[in-house]
Amino acid sequence: MPRMDPANDFAARLSATATETEALLGRLLGNAALRGETARPERLLAAMRHAVLGGGKRLRPFLLVETAALFGAGRDGALLAGAALECLHCYSLVHDDLPAMDDDDLRRGRPTVHKAFDDATAILVGDALQTLAFDILARPDVHTDANVRIALVSELARASGVGGMAGGQMLDLAAEGRFAAKRTLSENEIITLQAMKTGALIRFACRAGAILGEAKADARTGIDRYGAAIGQAFQIADDLLDVEGDSTTLGKAAGKDAAAGKATLVSALGAAAARARLDALIAEADAALAPFGAKAHILRDAARFIVQRRS
Amino acid sequence: MPRMDPANDFAARLSATATETEALLGRLLGNAALRGETARPERLLAAMRHAVLGGGKRLRPFLLVETAALFGAGRDGALLAGAALECLHCYSLVHDDLPAMDDDDLRRGRPTVHKAFDDATAILVGDALQTLAFDILARPDVHTDANVRIALVSELARASGVGGMAGGQMLDLAAEGRFAAKRTLSENEIITLQAMKTGALIRFACRAGAILGEAKADARTGIDRYGAAIGQAFQIADDLLDVEGDSTTLGKAAGKDAAAGKATLVSALGAAAARARLDALIAEADAALAPFGAKAHILRDAARFIVQRRS
Repeated sequence: MPRMDPANDFAARLSATATETEALLGRLLGNAALRGETARPERLLAAMRHAVLGGGKRLRPFLLVETAALFGAGRDGALLAGAALECLHCYSLVHDDLPAMDDDDLRRGRPTVHKAFDDATAILVGDALQTLAFDILARPDVHTDANVRIALVSELARASGVGGMAGGQMLDLAAEGRFAAKRTLSENEIITLQAMKTGALIRFACRAGAILGEAKADARTGIDRYGAAIGQAFQIADDLLDVEGDSTTLGKAAGKDAAAGKATLVSALGAAAARARLDALIAEADAALAPFGAKAHILRDAARFIVQRRS
Repeated sequence: MPRMDPANDFAARLSATATETEALLGRLLGNAALRGETARPERLLAAMRHAVLGGGKRLRPFLLVETAALFGAGRDGALLAGAALECLHCYSLVHDDLPAMDDDDLRRGRPTVHKAFDDATAILVGDALQTLAFDILARPDVHTDANVRIALVSELARASGVGGMAGGQMLDLAAEGRFAAKRTLSENEIITLQAMKTGALIRFACRAGAILGEAKADARTGIDRYGAAIGQAFQIADDLLDVEGDSTTLGKAAGKDAAAGKATLVSALGAAAARARLDALIAEADAALAPFGAKAHILRDAARFIVQRRS
């Protein structure tokens, strides 16, 4: 009866990883982060802490840690890689929130970095958090084998660069009509944009766990298929929340994407069709996990959690 | 008579490396950069090319390539690592030029990225160029040994993050009185700030060459000492050019740092004392290179070039 063991309970494991990740990020961004430096840009460190600490579900680190566990990789290394991924994710939030980008004042119920500090500091915070992500992945504590670490660096860079997250944000700004006349994106164009902008990092979380666990090629393929499915599901659920959620629960402005006319599958297909798509993606995630049997139950739960979350 | 061999001529070698680096960067940022991607954020790629291509001395790649050559490392891998370093350097220029930061309209005689495109694009260009730098360093073509590549990733991250370049830019903005009352920095504070903001990447260039060449510990220490000396010299020469140069030759606004009251050794000590410091740093660089004998003559020439350059 593994589902009755508290260690296997989804909510408890999600919460435990979030707590450990928060503590780890706190240490990585503490004063010790600059030990040995003669000058300490304290304002930058404080603003980096504002960007990264203060809660959150830590979904990406959780997916990384649980995928790594599926393949028997050490938890400490996976938590460290998860912290790196969270730094990368938070950098993208800080830059996306800037006035020149999406111009958001609120994030997780708190002022965004450029509101709490200023635009210049927020730009530097994002820059330094991206750097820190690669710094962390290069550390021997992530994995003793340099080949594993360099694979993580390479995969994170591909997921977040011009062919991934940053490119997706560019396509998103273009789709809003920022640089030329606004045009309606096709369903496939929306799927590609979202796979780049938000899907790629979620997919990386899963791939990174398989890399850390030195999974065989067919297992990696299955995990990658799972990651692609839940990455797409995550964004659709997010777009439904933007339409149906309220700002207090979300900790950020609701209805904003719809008001900006952002291209989403919800706006393209309607909410009912988007919900049907979510069901299909859950089925796809389950199918991808089938070869792993019962031991993948936390990842199955994670797919459902992503679809059903309220914030 | 090695100095009469054209292959040993400093200007010819500097020019050859710049040409090869430009061609390599053009390939890295060409359409093939997104081969296999279904969506192409062409605007982002075009703006990245604007930021990176179009000339420049490519001093950092040159230092990397020449240090690597000193230790017998392959030229192709060194050029690729140099291209990565140039992407990192160019990202910092794009972000520093933003209106929220130093607000510069001109760079290398051409409009800065946010002037040629817009602020949002410029933010994404910087972000994606930083990512590309780590992407490139992780590639097997840089070096067959993953331990060497991960060492490069780690060193570049340390040189450019909160304890290096980004932290130095933060200290520089603070010294301008951006966040609190302006105060006069001590000579040591200026040296530390500049060692972080601009010195760290130049020092990395030299260290990276030694890493690629798998140099022994004492040789690495010597190269690091050389890199620290020329890094400091570079900034002093830059500050003298800001005071004494003209905008046409510089390709950017002259006198701007002085007008902004930037903390420099030229403003703190005066131009004559700053020039004396440059002489001392050349002597320091020569002393650090002494163990390498005649074969380090290009690096000796590089130190003099840095001090005597007119742009």
